[in-house]
Amino acid sequence: MSVDLSALVAEIAADMAAEADRGTVATYIPQLAKVDPSRFGIAVIEADGTVHAAGDADEPFSIQSISKVFTLTLALGKIGDTLWKRVGREPSGNPFNSIVQLEAEKGIPRNPFINAGALVVTDVLLAGHAPKVAIGEILRFVRHVCDDDDVFIDEAVARSETATGHRNVALANYMRAFGNLEHDPALTLGVYFHQCAIAMSCRQLAAAGRFLALDGRHPTVGGRVVSSERARRINALMLTCGHYDGSGDFAFKVGIPGKSGVGGGILAVVPGKASIAVWSPGLNRIGNSRLGTMALERLAKAAGWSVFGP
Amino acid sequence: MSVDLSALVAEIAADMAAEADRGTVATYIPQLAKVDPSRFGIAVIEADGTVHAAGDADEPFSIQSISKVFTLTLALGKIGDTLWKRVGREPSGNPFNSIVQLEAEKGIPRNPFINAGALVVTDVLLAGHAPKVAIGEILRFVRHVCDDDDVFIDEAVARSETATGHRNVALANYMRAFGNLEHDPALTLGVYFHQCAIAMSCRQLAAAGRFLALDGRHPTVGGRVVSSERARRINALMLTCGHYDGSGDFAFKVGIPGKSGVGGGILAVVPGKASIAVWSPGLNRIGNSRLGTMALERLAKAAGWSVFGP
Amino acid sequence: MSVDLSALVAEIAADMAAEADRGTVATYIPQLAKVDPSRFGIAVIEADGTVHAAGDADEPFSIQSISKVFTLTLALGKIGDTLWKRVGREPSGNPFNSIVQLEAEKGIPRNPFINAGALVVTDVLLAGHAPKVAIGEILRFVRHVCDDDDVFIDEAVARSETATGHRNVALANYMRAFGNLEHDPALTLGVYFHQCAIAMSCRQLAAAGRFLALDGRHPTVGGRVVSSERARRINALMLTCGHYDGSGDFAFKVGIPGKSGVGGGILAVVPGKASIAVWSPGLNRIGNSRLGTMALERLAKAAGWSVFGP
Amino acid sequence: MSVDLSALVAEIAADMAAEADRGTVATYIPQLAKVDPSRFGIAVIEADGTVHAAGDADEPFSIQSISKVFTLTLALGKIGDTLWKRVGREPSGNPFNSIVQLEAEKGIPRNPFINAGALVVTDVLLAGHAPKVAIGEILRFVRHVCDDDDVFIDEAVARSETATGHRNVALANYMRAFGNLEHDPALTLGVYFHQCAIAMSCRQLAAAGRFLALDGRHPTVGGRVVSSERARRINALMLTCGHYDGSGDFAFKVGIPGKSGVGGGILAVVPGKASIAVWSPGLNRIGNSRLGTMALERLAKAAGWSVFGP
Repeated sequence: MSVDLSALVAEIAADMAAEADRGTVATYIPQLAKVDPSRFGIAVIEADGTVHAAGDADEPFSIQSISKVFTLTLALGKIGDTLWKRVGREPSGNPFNSIVQLEAEKGIPRNPFINAGALVVTDVLLAGHAPKVAIGEILRFVRHVCDDDDVFIDEAVARSETATGHRNVALANYMRAFGNLEHDPALTLGVYFHQCAIAMSCRQLAAAGRFLALDGRHPTVGGRVVSSERARRINALMLTCGHYDGSGDFAFKVGIPGKSGVGGGILAVVPGKASIAVWSPGLNRIGNSRLGTMALERLAKAAGWSVFGP
Repeated sequence: MSVDLSALVAEIAADMAAEADRGTVATYIPQLAKVDPSRFGIAVIEADGTVHAAGDADEPFSIQSISKVFTLTLALGKIGDTLWKRVGREPSGNPFNSIVQLEAEKGIPRNPFINAGALVVTDVLLAGHAPKVAIGEILRFVRHVCDDDDVFIDEAVARSETATGHRNVALANYMRAFGNLEHDPALTLGVYFHQCAIAMSCRQLAAAGRFLALDGRHPTVGGRVVSSERARRINALMLTCGHYDGSGDFAFKVGIPGKSGVGGGILAVVPGKASIAVWSPGLNRIGNSRLGTMALERLAKAAGWSVFGP
Repeated sequence: MSVDLSALVAEIAADMAAEADRGTVATYIPQLAKVDPSRFGIAVIEADGTVHAAGDADEPFSIQSISKVFTLTLALGKIGDTLWKRVGREPSGNPFNSIVQLEAEKGIPRNPFINAGALVVTDVLLAGHAPKVAIGEILRFVRHVCDDDDVFIDEAVARSETATGHRNVALANYMRAFGNLEHDPALTLGVYFHQCAIAMSCRQLAAAGRFLALDGRHPTVGGRVVSSERARRINALMLTCGHYDGSGDFAFKVGIPGKSGVGGGILAVVPGKASIAVWSPGLNRIGNSRLGTMALERLAKAAGWSVFGP
Repeated sequence: MSVDLSALVAEIAADMAAEADRGTVATYIPQLAKVDPSRFGIAVIEADGTVHAAGDADEPFSIQSISKVFTLTLALGKIGDTLWKRVGREPSGNPFNSIVQLEAEKGIPRNPFINAGALVVTDVLLAGHAPKVAIGEILRFVRHVCDDDDVFIDEAVARSETATGHRNVALANYMRAFGNLEHDPALTLGVYFHQCAIAMSCRQLAAAGRFLALDGRHPTVGGRVVSSERARRINALMLTCGHYDGSGDFAFKVGIPGKSGVGGGILAVVPGKASIAVWSPGLNRIGNSRLGTMALERLAKAAGWSVFGP
């Protein structure tokens, strides 16, 4: 790679700061609606650990659905491939909070990255635990993968989600009616709203995604987070399902696995090469960070990082 | 790569020949129903042109939906990105011949690899031409990319599809009602049924896919078939949408771009490394070649070819 | 009944003539788009044969979907209740030309009054006949029930439908793919487009509906058109399914069985009391005659004709 | 009518007692699953007050969705036709607990007799009240219309529904997300589960439905329950939407307005002539009482009570 990544990252951050159309900050969670849309952060960690960061790369933001990558990893570690009896692996062809597919497919969500699927994954993590314990385990796991104990849960965001998450309450109860939730939906939802409220900076998030770029190996403390096959498979799911009903377009334009959140963050993985986190609170029509997507498209193109060809 | 590809390919072919459960040969096109389910062929062409073939690798079969990769490439060459006004780039979350999505999305198919989307692409190729001329152009293009004039259209298959393709007739007329087909549906369908009836061997098909593994460059006659960006994007579409409602699973298990056809063929592309064609007529529940998928999963794993990590 | 029906009918016609918002004339069949929206006709035939007519009651118009009542009657006479294996008896909860329900219910239309269901009924009438013969039989039957040989088929309308009826072509081919059409879709469609092009005046149409108000007995030539049970059942279907996705509203506001057509006509039946035909070409949002519905609501209320109470 | 109703009712009850296939008792509410499937009761009250009863006509059962008729009447009395801004009047074309339609139609249920619609109606009754007060008002209203203070709420059933009503919880939260529920879903659901748990005998229920057969007039205490127009309209809704996705079939075969409940009861209204209640716990495939439907079909036919003709 002859690209000067530090210069590239700085240039992208500068251009994004100047961008007029920043998308729309999500308003359905009141606490998120307060975030300043002018923020933009980016952090790239290369396979060897070199970090390139720019903008608000050290500002913690609500990772929201990006947490689904970590809970999926954790749940697969617990129950392995039996998870796939309760959740599919196909793109949904529907918005992230659609309930229609669940009726047609008898309570089995299409993949673990739509809300319904993530609720099933969280339900797996709740087995044998009180909600508080499950929340603690998730937080500990995220801190472990990025090797940083400063990661925290924003309780105000968690409360805000609890008060307004009627669609998620509907999804959870609907799956419970089909027998695809093992716990009282209120408990599963409690854990889910807390995992979504995890706050991380781009730097922390990029660090947390490194194991997926490194075939499952933990980059700093040694050993494996997951097997190389599982790392590949999580990356595949991120590519096909990581951006809701914009996943095809993200693959088409950016060409690397990624998972977005309505807080405006995106975690992206370049297998063997880099882990990237971007953050800009304004969303596009589909619900993915507008500037974050643009920044990743530009970065992947300039660095020749698309998995689909140089 | 320390893998002995020739040995690996031969071993896979031998194991597939011994496999008892061969899936179900498609019966809805009478001519296809006659194909012997015991057939299995595989051809791998590395970036440098080295070929590894085994089984019925020189037996022509009906490429069916794999033709959509070539017509998409041709149509993008003709009208460029304006194509995307008439067809989307998202996985459908539905079977390949679903009409439901078209009603909800006003006649705009979700992607160019479901039947409705491919009909729009064919409609583009028909512009300004008689159907015979358009068919000739498609055939010439396929012969060009594989540099082999023996590729032919099986007229018996084309007739068989015409007589039984009521769902495709429905799709075409439905899109015409929304104004998303510019020609008399009967003409577009005529061309479409012929492109599906193109017959190729695994060796020819693997050759035809090489430009996608080579950033768009033509492997033998020189020059470019498409730009490198377009090659990446076609690969991305193959990965997210190339196996109908089994695309997510193919990405999860195999991890490389691929396009299947109901004739039992699959074309798969390893960017920068190889082009692969497999053929086995029996299909799985979703409509993709059962043994073809198994063979590709094994090959990609052994060769470390997944785009999602080694 | 102390209502002076002649005065009431005249008054309604006068008020409708003065109405400013006349709805929108259907444009998707070019020949229908030419009809003058200022037209309004009404004819009421009491059980004893007394006729009250006003406005353009003698002007022939395209009965379109109202023809479905007559073909259903004819098909039930031919094959009886075995018809219900191929078409349901439930309101559709969807627009008249929706194809979505067909996919979910494997080619079985919800009822004989949506387009798909009417195509199945027409397919029944085609059995053993050339299309021309089937068309002739339908026309003869309509002439028979109204005892009037002046009823005719408007060939220009039939041609106009043939040229633009892509959605109906889609529906027919889709059902054929499920095996629920026994003939080449083109033949069934040919008959269907002709039955829709039958032209009748309000006076003729009201006469043609009398047998449904008279328990199935033919009002003028004697004998039965259908059994009393079948007459009741056809009336029930008209009430629950006769106005597409506005059937519930028509029952709620008007309270009598009725069948509308996009030509702006409505045939309504008051069991034991009267047969009514209204015509005004402008349609409401659902596709039913705007003034026709208003006129019937007023008439039914003033005459105390709702089947749901005085 | 020369039919001897007492003999007819007794004969039907005797035949139903002997019927072998009694359908399937609903099991999703544990308390209902305990009911003895051999039970059958029927009560007919003629316009003049004459009662014909047979079988278990004095045994209280859980009226379940039949309560929707009474809450609708009450809510229309409170807010009149503004109710129709929050709920439609069309048959749904879907099972009683489908959530799909709500997504497509932005939280507006199709009619007040599917669960989602009934929840909106209950939400209206909750306005300005504590749940206990609203429950009390509903119970008082039902006691008033049947002029019988022995009607009661079965608390064990209410608790059973609360514990297992996950689909209803999903529906309520989903509508709340669209802003079509004004109260905390838990409160609305609390009232709803209690109204469903009202227990009545056939004799009481037939008495409670009399006002709908009498143009809205209260049969015993004098005055009006509703206007005659509103009575007609409620009857119309019962006919088009009263039996979920079997409403069309009930209209086709029985031909009178009716509302069923999963407890096995059906309330049916013959405008101007009679109010009928039947009860048999076993349900057909659609969720309506199997023997209850058969009994009503026979009764309506023998008595010539179909609203669609004698």
